[in-house]
Amino acid sequence: MKWLHKDLLDVSQLSRAEVMAIFETAGRFQELQQRPVKKVPTLKGRSVILFFAEPSTRTKTSFDVAGKRLSADTFSLAKSSSSLTKGETLKDTALTLQAMAPDAIVLRHWCSGAARFLARRVECSVINAGDGRHAHPTQALLDSFTLHQEWGELAGKTILILGDIAHSRVARSNVLLLNMLGARVRLCAPRTLLPPQVRSWPATVYSDLSEAVRGVDAVMCLRLQLERQQDGLLPDLREYARTYGLGPRHVELARPEVKILHPGPMNRGVEISSGLADCADSLILDQVASGVVVRMALLFLYMTRKGE
Amino acid sequence: MKWLHKDLLDVSQLSRAEVMAIFETAGRFQELQQRPVKKVPTLKGRSVILFFAEPSTRTKTSFDVAGKRLSADTFSLAKSSSSLTKGETLKDTALTLQAMAPDAIVLRHWCSGAARFLARRVECSVINAGDGRHAHPTQALLDSFTLHQEWGELAGKTILILGDIAHSRVARSNVLLLNMLGARVRLCAPRTLLPPQVRSWPATVYSDLSEAVRGVDAVMCLRLQLERQQDGLLPDLREYARTYGLGPRHVELARPEVKILHPGPMNRGVEISSGLADCADSLILDQVASGVVVRMALLFLYMTRKGE
Amino acid sequence: MKWLHKDLLDVSQLSRAEVMAIFETAGRFQELQQRPVKKVPTLKGRSVILFFAEPSTRTKTSFDVAGKRLSADTFSLAKSSSSLTKGETLKDTALTLQAMAPDAIVLRHWCSGAARFLARRVECSVINAGDGRHAHPTQALLDSFTLHQEWGELAGKTILILGDIAHSRVARSNVLLLNMLGARVRLCAPRTLLPPQVRSWPATVYSDLSEAVRGVDAVMCLRLQLERQQDGLLPDLREYARTYGLGPRHVELARPEVKILHPGPMNRGVEISSGLADCADSLILDQVASGVVVRMALLFLYMTRKGE
Repeated sequence: MKWLHKDLLDVSQLSRAEVMAIFETAGRFQELQQRPVKKVPTLKGRSVILFFAEPSTRTKTSFDVAGKRLSADTFSLAKSSSSLTKGETLKDTALTLQAMAPDAIVLRHWCSGAARFLARRVECSVINAGDGRHAHPTQALLDSFTLHQEWGELAGKTILILGDIAHSRVARSNVLLLNMLGARVRLCAPRTLLPPQVRSWPATVYSDLSEAVRGVDAVMCLRLQLERQQDGLLPDLREYARTYGLGPRHVELARPEVKILHPGPMNRGVEISSGLADCADSLILDQVASGVVVRMALLFLYMTRKGE
Repeated sequence: MKWLHKDLLDVSQLSRAEVMAIFETAGRFQELQQRPVKKVPTLKGRSVILFFAEPSTRTKTSFDVAGKRLSADTFSLAKSSSSLTKGETLKDTALTLQAMAPDAIVLRHWCSGAARFLARRVECSVINAGDGRHAHPTQALLDSFTLHQEWGELAGKTILILGDIAHSRVARSNVLLLNMLGARVRLCAPRTLLPPQVRSWPATVYSDLSEAVRGVDAVMCLRLQLERQQDGLLPDLREYARTYGLGPRHVELARPEVKILHPGPMNRGVEISSGLADCADSLILDQVASGVVVRMALLFLYMTRKGE
Repeated sequence: MKWLHKDLLDVSQLSRAEVMAIFETAGRFQELQQRPVKKVPTLKGRSVILFFAEPSTRTKTSFDVAGKRLSADTFSLAKSSSSLTKGETLKDTALTLQAMAPDAIVLRHWCSGAARFLARRVECSVINAGDGRHAHPTQALLDSFTLHQEWGELAGKTILILGDIAHSRVARSNVLLLNMLGARVRLCAPRTLLPPQVRSWPATVYSDLSEAVRGVDAVMCLRLQLERQQDGLLPDLREYARTYGLGPRHVELARPEVKILHPGPMNRGVEISSGLADCADSLILDQVASGVVVRMALLFLYMTRKGE
C-alpha cells in the first residue's frame, strides 16, 4: 500500500483506506499485547524524540510505551527550563532536533499549527500529539479504534461529543474522523463552550443534554480543564455538573448498551458521574489500552513507510 | 519455591524463607555486578513503571538501574504537573497504568496505604518504594542484606536504630525485619521524634544515646528531614546533633567493629559525624550497592513468580 | 594506542595524537549515521549516568542519543529536587553514584572544578559536560571536529571567537584546542565581557569587531546568557547587537567562504543576524550533528580504554 503523508498532522490528511490500515495494524499489535512478552523487535535501532512543550504525562507515557514495545529508543524532551525552548524559536529547535537524526518526532505544543511548522523543516516523520486548539489526531484515532473494536463498523452509528468543545482539539479531530467513518455526530455544550465556527462542522449542535443523548450509540465526554477556571473561562462547576454532567438518567435516554468514552484524566462528578465511569459499558480503560496499540501502529507505519 | 504474594507492600508479608530467597538471589546478582558487563537478559521485553508521586532520585535511580540491568524497559512517571495525578484520583491513575499493561509498578507515594490501594486494583505486581509513614520494605531488605553479607547471620546481633523514628517508614519496616531475622532491636530518639505506638513494637526504647549504643553490633542512623524544620516539627539542630548525632565517643561504647549504616542522603554533622560516615566500619556505600542488587532480586522474583 | 586519562576534564589533558584519534573515531561514527539504522551494539550492556546539576537539554540529549546509538543504557539525573543534590555534598553524591557501578558519568555542574572533584572519587570515567566557567571540552572538540570535517586541517587558519568570553567555559576550551591544532585565535568582546586573565591566553584580543573579523577563516559566536541581564552583568542588548552582533557587513571583511559557528541556542538578532545563521557557510547545524558523533567517540574511547 503506497500511501500516507510523511507526517500525521491531523486526521483530515488520512483516507478511509489509510484509517482502516491503521486500525488493522493496531489490531494486530493488540493481539501481541496479550502475550507475556509484549515487546517486538520491529523498530530496533530506530529513535523517536518525544518533544512535549506542554505537560502531558498520559500521552507521553503512551507514546513512550508504544515506542519501546517496538524496540525503538525514545528520547523525552520536556519544556521546563529546556534550552531547546528557552530563548530559542521553534524553527531553531526543529533544526536542532533534525540534526540529531531521529527517525520520528512526536510533538505536543501549545501553539496551533506547530506540528505543521515542524514537519516542513525536518526530514523525518512528525506525529502531532496535540497542537493548541487545532488537532489531536492520535486521540481521535484511538477513540474510533476503541469503538471499531467494539462494534466492527461505525457507519450508521450516532455519537454524541459532550462538554468543552471550544477549548478541545480532540472534539474537532473526532468530528472529522467519525464523519469519515460514516457515523453521525452530535455536539452538546453550553453556548460559552462552543467554538464560533461550530455551525460549519458536519455535526448537529444541541444545548440540551437530554435531547442530545436521545438514541445515541456512544457518548464521548470531554475533559473540563479546571485550570481555566481562574481565567473566568469556565462556568460554575456545580451548575455545569447539574446541566452537562453525564449521569444515569441520560444514559436511559440513549440506546441500550450505549458506550461511554472519556479521554482522561476524568473529573468524576463534573463531566461524568462516578458510577457511569466504572459501568460495564464504559470503554474508558479500553481507550488507554487502544492508545498504546494505535500509537504502535502509527510509529510503525510512518517510520517504515516508503517515500514516493 | 511456591510462595510470595503478588505484591511487596511491607516486610510483614514475607516469611523468613522468602527473605532468605531474596538475599540468595541478590547475592547471585551481586556476583554478576563484578563483571565488566553487568547487564543480563533475564527480563528482556518486560516493562516496569516507576511511579514516584514523591520526589526521590536515589530510590528511583536504584530501581531504574536494577530494571535495566535485567534488560527490562523502565518508564518513569514523576509527580510534577503530571496529568496522572492532577485532578485524578489514585484509583483512576491505577486503572490507567494497568491499561498500559506493565509487568510491575514501583510506587512511591506520600499517602500511607497507597501501595495496597494500587495493588488491589492492578493485575501486575506492585513494589512499595515507600508509602507515607507506613512502610519502606525495599530499604529494610537492603539494610538487612548489607548486614547479612557482612556477618552471614543476624541472629543474636543487637542493632540500634537512631534518630527521627516518628516520621520514618524505614524504622518500622526495619524493626519488623530485624526481629524476623533474630536480631534484637533498640530504638533511640528524643521523645518528640518517637511515634505514639512505639511501646508496642518489638524493640527497646532509649532516650539516652550513650546508654542505647552500649554493646550494639550495628547502628542504623535515620535521616533528619530538614524540610520539616519550617513546620516546627524538628528540634533545634545544634542541640540535636550534640545529643543524638552519632560520634566517635559513642562508637567506643559499642562492640568492636560496630557497623554504621545510613540510608542517605546524609546530613553530615547532624545525624552522624563526618568521620564516622567514612570510617572503615561504615557500610553506607555498601547499602547503595545492595540497593541495586536487592531491587534486581525483587523485580526478578516478583515478575517471574508463578501464580498459585 | 595506549593513551588517554581515565577522565575527560579538559582539552588540556589531550595530546594532539589523541585529538586526532577522537576525530577519526567520530568520523567513522558519522558514516554510520548515514545508514537507515544508526545504532551499533558497541557498548551493549554498559551504563552511563548523565548527571546534570545545571539544566541543559541540548547537551544532555546529545549525550543521551550518543549513548543509546552505541547501545549503552543511560540514566538521567537532573538537579531539580533531587535528593542526590539537596542536603548532600558533591562528595556523597559521587560516592553514591560510584556504588551503583556505572561505566561512565557525564557531569554538568555549576561549580568550576566539579568534574575533577568527582573524577578523583570514582573509578569509572568522568566526562566533563561543562563545569562552572572552567571548561567544556566536548563542545570544543565538536567545534574543532566540525571545522576539521570542512577543511581537513586547521593549521594556518585564523579563527575569531566573538562574544561573552568572560562567562564562557566554551571560549577557554576552544582557545586551548585550536592552538593545539595549529590555528591562530582571535578574541573579540566588549571590555566588560573579557575575563581578567585573558592577556595570558594564546590569542590576540580585539575590541573592534570590524578589525577582528578581517581575514578570518571562521567566526565562532558565543551565546549571550540573557538570564544574566537581571544581575546587571550584561550590556544593553540593542547596543551590544549593534556593536558586537555578527552581520553581513562583517562577513564581507573576512575570507571568502568564512565559516560561521554558534554553540546554540542562538539569540537571533543579538549575537548573530538571522540571515547569517542560515547562510550556506553556516556550520551551526553541522555542529549539532558533530555533537552526537564526537560524544559517541568519547564514550566509546573512554569506556573501552585499557588501564595502564
